[in-house]
Amino acid sequence: MPDVHRIYEVRCPIHGFITLNDWELNVIAQPAFQRLRRIRQLAWTDYVYPGAMHTRFEHSLGVMHTATLLYDAIVRSSKDVLASELAYDEAGLRRGRQLVRFAALLHDLGHPPFSHASEELFPKGESGKRYKHEDYSIAIIRSELRSAIEDHPLNGANYGFRADDVAALVGGSPRAKTGIFWKDLISGQMDADRMDYLLRDSYHAGVQYGRFDLHRLISTIRPVRYYDGRAPRLGISQGGWHAAEALVLARYFMFTQVYFHKTRVAYDVYLRQTLKELLPDGCFPNLVDGELQEFLKWDDWKVLGLLSDGKGGEHGARLKARDHYRLVYRTQEVPDEKNLKQLETIKGMLGGLLAAEEAASKSWYKTGPTDIPVVDDLDEKTVKPLSDYSHVVKNLETNSQILLYAKSEDVPRAKKIVDEVREHDRSA
Amino acid sequence: MPDVHRIYEVRCPIHGFITLNDWELNVIAQPAFQRLRRIRQLAWTDYVYPGAMHTRFEHSLGVMHTATLLYDAIVRSSKDVLASELAYDEAGLRRGRQLVRFAALLHDLGHPPFSHASEELFPKGESGKRYKHEDYSIAIIRSELRSAIEDHPLNGANYGFRADDVAALVGGSPRAKTGIFWKDLISGQMDADRMDYLLRDSYHAGVQYGRFDLHRLISTIRPVRYYDGRAPRLGISQGGWHAAEALVLARYFMFTQVYFHKTRVAYDVYLRQTLKELLPDGCFPNLVDGELQEFLKWDDWKVLGLLSDGKGGEHGARLKARDHYRLVYRTQEVPDEKNLKQLETIKGMLGGLLAAEEAASKSWYKTGPTDIPVVDDLDEKTVKPLSDYSHVVKNLETNSQILLYAKSEDVPRAKKIVDEVREHDRSA
Amino acid sequence: MPDVHRIYEVRCPIHGFITLNDWELNVIAQPAFQRLRRIRQLAWTDYVYPGAMHTRFEHSLGVMHTATLLYDAIVRSSKDVLASELAYDEAGLRRGRQLVRFAALLHDLGHPPFSHASEELFPKGESGKRYKHEDYSIAIIRSELRSAIEDHPLNGANYGFRADDVAALVGGSPRAKTGIFWKDLISGQMDADRMDYLLRDSYHAGVQYGRFDLHRLISTIRPVRYYDGRAPRLGISQGGWHAAEALVLARYFMFTQVYFHKTRVAYDVYLRQTLKELLPDGCFPNLVDGELQEFLKWDDWKVLGLLSDGKGGEHGARLKARDHYRLVYRTQEVPDEKNLKQLETIKGMLGGLLAAEEAASKSWYKTGPTDIPVVDDLDEKTVKPLSDYSHVVKNLETNSQILLYAKSEDVPRAKKIVDEVREHDRSA
Amino acid sequence: MPDVHRIYEVRCPIHGFITLNDWELNVIAQPAFQRLRRIRQLAWTDYVYPGAMHTRFEHSLGVMHTATLLYDAIVRSSKDVLASELAYDEAGLRRGRQLVRFAALLHDLGHPPFSHASEELFPKGESGKRYKHEDYSIAIIRSELRSAIEDHPLNGANYGFRADDVAALVGGSPRAKTGIFWKDLISGQMDADRMDYLLRDSYHAGVQYGRFDLHRLISTIRPVRYYDGRAPRLGISQGGWHAAEALVLARYFMFTQVYFHKTRVAYDVYLRQTLKELLPDGCFPNLVDGELQEFLKWDDWKVLGLLSDGKGGEHGARLKARDHYRLVYRTQEVPDEKNLKQLETIKGMLGGLLAAEEAASKSWYKTGPTDIPVVDDLDEKTVKPLSDYSHVVKNLETNSQILLYAKSEDVPRAKKIVDEVREHDRSA
Repeated sequence: MPDVHRIYEVRCPIHGFITLNDWELNVIAQPAFQRLRRIRQLAWTDYVYPGAMHTRFEHSLGVMHTATLLYDAIVRSSKDVLASELAYDEAGLRRGRQLVRFAALLHDLGHPPFSHASEELFPKGESGKRYKHEDYSIAIIRSELRSAIEDHPLNGANYGFRADDVAALVGGSPRAKTGIFWKDLISGQMDADRMDYLLRDSYHAGVQYGRFDLHRLISTIRPVRYYDGRAPRLGISQGGWHAAEALVLARYFMFTQVYFHKTRVAYDVYLRQTLKELLPDGCFPNLVDGELQEFLKWDDWKVLGLLSDGKGGEHGARLKARDHYRLVYRTQEVPDEKNLKQLETIKGMLGGLLAAEEAASKSWYKTGPTDIPVVDDLDEKTVKPLSDYSHVVKNLETNSQILLYAKSEDVPRAKKIVDEVREHDRSA
Repeated sequence: MPDVHRIYEVRCPIHGFITLNDWELNVIAQPAFQRLRRIRQLAWTDYVYPGAMHTRFEHSLGVMHTATLLYDAIVRSSKDVLASELAYDEAGLRRGRQLVRFAALLHDLGHPPFSHASEELFPKGESGKRYKHEDYSIAIIRSELRSAIEDHPLNGANYGFRADDVAALVGGSPRAKTGIFWKDLISGQMDADRMDYLLRDSYHAGVQYGRFDLHRLISTIRPVRYYDGRAPRLGISQGGWHAAEALVLARYFMFTQVYFHKTRVAYDVYLRQTLKELLPDGCFPNLVDGELQEFLKWDDWKVLGLLSDGKGGEHGARLKARDHYRLVYRTQEVPDEKNLKQLETIKGMLGGLLAAEEAASKSWYKTGPTDIPVVDDLDEKTVKPLSDYSHVVKNLETNSQILLYAKSEDVPRAKKIVDEVREHDRSA
Repeated sequence: MPDVHRIYEVRCPIHGFITLNDWELNVIAQPAFQRLRRIRQLAWTDYVYPGAMHTRFEHSLGVMHTATLLYDAIVRSSKDVLASELAYDEAGLRRGRQLVRFAALLHDLGHPPFSHASEELFPKGESGKRYKHEDYSIAIIRSELRSAIEDHPLNGANYGFRADDVAALVGGSPRAKTGIFWKDLISGQMDADRMDYLLRDSYHAGVQYGRFDLHRLISTIRPVRYYDGRAPRLGISQGGWHAAEALVLARYFMFTQVYFHKTRVAYDVYLRQTLKELLPDGCFPNLVDGELQEFLKWDDWKVLGLLSDGKGGEHGARLKARDHYRLVYRTQEVPDEKNLKQLETIKGMLGGLLAAEEAASKSWYKTGPTDIPVVDDLDEKTVKPLSDYSHVVKNLETNSQILLYAKSEDVPRAKKIVDEVREHDRSA
Repeated sequence: MPDVHRIYEVRCPIHGFITLNDWELNVIAQPAFQRLRRIRQLAWTDYVYPGAMHTRFEHSLGVMHTATLLYDAIVRSSKDVLASELAYDEAGLRRGRQLVRFAALLHDLGHPPFSHASEELFPKGESGKRYKHEDYSIAIIRSELRSAIEDHPLNGANYGFRADDVAALVGGSPRAKTGIFWKDLISGQMDADRMDYLLRDSYHAGVQYGRFDLHRLISTIRPVRYYDGRAPRLGISQGGWHAAEALVLARYFMFTQVYFHKTRVAYDVYLRQTLKELLPDGCFPNLVDGELQEFLKWDDWKVLGLLSDGKGGEHGARLKARDHYRLVYRTQEVPDEKNLKQLETIKGMLGGLLAAEEAASKSWYKTGPTDIPVVDDLDEKTVKPLSDYSHVVKNLETNSQILLYAKSEDVPRAKKIVDEVREHDRSA
């Protein structure tokens, strides 16, 4: 008889060994989860950073592990607060831990092939709003993984979870009020997802940009509340504010240096166009039962097979041949008016030579209600948001760079035009 | 006008930046080389070590880089020997360097999908002997890459290489006699290929096993000759013999812990069977012109697409579903007679329950003519082979472990049989 | 006969192997350089980060190595500019390289025990201005190392350097005009010193804060000039500006997290007081001949021996017993007026309970003439300072945190006072 | 009121953060423990590997941490065995954990300055046998640390430890029979001490030699017993035997490459001679009360201060001036008879030119009763010693290399003699 209490281990380049219980192993064994082995984390980034071939599967295990490290640290440091403010007892904390692990593990289930594609390839829901990959994650948890989550002996004997409990935490509207607090671990400005992908993407790509002090964050993270009656949020003690600041900067550097790399951005254009070509009606199957199973068949393997077969139109051919558009102009990351005017002039003069225009837009840190609270370790009554401590974080302006591309054969003509506009603006 | 003297850089997680000249970049841009982006280095190893998704493309760049580090170190330390023994002058050394770089870069071109498959899937040549992937590498260099190698301005102006020169060094029978020496850098017991894959496979899989002291090897490698008239070979000075010993052991550990992992070996069985099913006549296209282009179409993408499409028979389905055979018995790595007898008994009793039998056979170090020569740094006249210095290396016995597998549904019955045989042998 | 062309290697945890020629080895062998083995890089930081025991010796080798990496990269990318703008030919570049190596190697010679101590412990020069450790470095190069630099066969045969040439580059006023450019490698906002200590201090302390992308900096650094007639300065191409920004941030993080750690700062107070007690007249010997030899006897060993012997007064005893003052109040890193007013109130009320007041003041990046120039890689004519690209760097406000300490026995009383002031200010 | 339940953290380059409870922190704060900050781990190794400046303090924390990782892994995997074979319940396991932590933390307390010195510098006990540093560790625990161990509130409320309990585990004869098992974690062929120093020494020296797969060892370590009635010992499951083999090899490599480095060995000669000169009667103070306090004053600081002051005789001067003896001859690591005969001849002919003769002798693995037991994971009833699995470990012959040194001024004459003997032997 198999031992449901057995612990399994998976080797992870970032965290050493990741341990799994029998229940989790069983969830991971489901086809809807195994599909993540066939979804590369960073799409075509390997065309620029050849080492970056890793998958959502590896990352999902890592997020579960990181969320657990954070969870355990919070319980270790703040069991009293969790008890007094959120009414957790020992059993509740054990239960919360398992719930957080599942939500972290499964939050990425709904990714399309190559992890990201244009929003416009998702169908619209009844409300008329387009679905997002999170909606697919939730739908998959509720259908494909329901049985694996609900019917395992470890669940019946100890927790009585419903798949909906996991889905609720992934979706951000947990049914249990107390669960709201843990939501920050799954998606927030200091969440386990972000921590894992920054470290993992840096590692496989072979760069330093995404490194930060995970140990320090773990040792200083805790529930913090402003003294204004609001519920506690995930925050840090003062000794960790520079580590939190460094996490924000690690993301800033990974975006500007890797995710928004000019060539990588060009391949995103191709991927979008290629998928539009390959998908029936240029759109992913819906997330309703019956169609969701069709959606799940869309993974990297299928797309690569189609590309190998010559499908995917001009953009598919370019993807396969690695014949990408060339950058001919880009604005500053935070363009001023003069810069935007130059952009418009150049676009106008390029006309048909403009093969693609892409925006690398990203906000680095949100102040306001989600600003990370920091508690002073010399004075516990003083709680201020991270952006009050960090001038760096407060002044990180939203990226809104625009990049203009031309086909390689058009580059000389396009560059000539760009140079002329520049020269004109310089002498003006 | 593009600048042929420009230097390009590619980020590498192992070596930092790998630099390329315009000529090399052009060779790399050829479809036959880009195909290596679509050949995973370690096949289905990610089913055991999820991080191991890296490709032959990344590795090939790394081998070129490592070979260059070794080449430059040898020139730095032993220019005088290279001049007196092998007649190299400055121009010759520059030429040799470029030749070694190309051979290192291109030595893996002929790999089939997923890097390795059974020898029996390759067709036989005229001699009746089956081809190996090296034969395909050579054929591809001579046909698909001929023009990229021969027609670049940097070649005409400086070297006058023929594609055959590169192919000869890959194949081990360089036309220029002096080139023989450099062959050891491409394929030998201390070659750049081995150094790179040990470090790279360890890195992406997240293990320590393949680490060794690359710096020390580089700083102690040199041309060494026994004082018996034989030509110099790649050897080391005494200060590096433990580093060379550690390289041998790193390979030993990587094989026993990663490449021969019981589950990984099971997937190799599937891959072989699946390819046999998918290939026309169960055999790769020949390497002759016309068919070679067909061979080149066989890459991971094509196979993954076919698997996604439900092709590949039972084994293909198992590969996709990750439903692997289970190990029920294995001999020791160096089985004794008693062990082999037990194996035979078990095989006989398992009968139809035996789903697969695989041999993990490997020689760790070859003494004899290819034993690495070590020169005493207190006494330059004393040259002895590494196996004289290292009791470890001398006593590393060839691995010849046999592994027996059953289908998962048959495991309980198979294990019962195995246990009975063991119990019987124990009490005997 | 020893071979003056021999190359030596020293193992370095940061850079692998550092190579030295016979001349450099001979300089390193001089007692005035060996003394750096007896000067810890980070003083008493090991009381907080136990791994941080490394010395100026290790760092000095690393700076020489890093400066060479940068030098070689600049020559590789910009030989034409160096020729046209600065009149370098091959021989000149070889000479410049050796000069830069010596200056980088020797720039830290004049450090007092434990690397840093209060300026007030140095004597005043004739001008009435206190000397700095750089003045001692220069004096030592000119006296103790003169012969080792000038009399080596490699110098006579190839360069004809004077010790004054090295001293001039260390001091920032090179006699040869062209040398000015290389000064930025030795001391500037992107110098080899900074690059090495950030990586090395992070490594031994076991933190991530000081990591940055050295490879990327190396591959994008180059001579850049504003088109206004000024001489070229060390700058970068646009592809490297985020790497340069990350270098500035790495320093920011190392200071706030390690160098300005509250406990480390407390030990700096003790060190200063202890040295004042131990030094004859509370002041280091002068740098003039005769006295300089006395100065050189002041190293960590001597001080540790005196502490072991019970010398050094109250502060010496506290240093040895690790009985440090405790932080009871600190302002923000960039205090506002309200914050400074609170500080004054607290200081007034603490009175005799205030054991020490320390300022952690540091400027992170200097705009103006030393702002790092960045050249646009799509448009070589556009050169703008880094602070124009980076909002982060531009907005990094100077640190001017003030920390207040009490003796451990006084902490409860002091904290009570601080809490009362805080409470009063809060309710105000 | 201070919170005795507070957890403290210390940054460690090897293990991230090391956590401490208030009781442990208090033990660490004692002068006898703080003294370890003043004892370098690898003596004068920094003269060869400049980064190796780390101390016993850092290492001792690491051993405590590693022992805890192992302890917790064993409890996780084998709580049932610990209960059935060794009668542990939950409280017992918590108690055992704290005891193991203290023993691991304190096992190195008795080291003399620079960690090692000749046995002959220790006084003899009543039995006439010379003491070892372990005897001093035990004596210090029983006297200097008794109160800190026994009088802390966490002890009284929960454990009731005596300092003698800790001393007993350090000394290997625990009073509680069940404790014997844990002894293997403190000193054995797979102990936490070894694991920590191999990783830490490699790290600071900047070499790869001591790396092994700590994660894998942790996940496969467990109590194993031979089916012959003997008590369980620390062993591993079959999946970890290559990791255990790699641990043995890591030690082999660290000794041959670092600890037995020819120059490092020369400085050990000096250290011994210097201490003999400096110590009253050439011998360390006894470990009896009254004298033990004198012994504790002997740390690196004191010795460095004396060297700085010109004390220590000729060898002290050479230590400070880094003027070391030069290797002129060494036997193989496992010398054969011919080799030993040559050694004798050379020694005879060198006569007064022989400045020092040192033996680098070390056994790499002990078979027999302490051979690490391995349990087959396909067949739990099969337990065999590691040396049965590993041909490498079985064949690692004891090192017994002899090294001969001459003063630097005598090297040419000594080398001439050595060369003549070699030449003679070669032609014989």
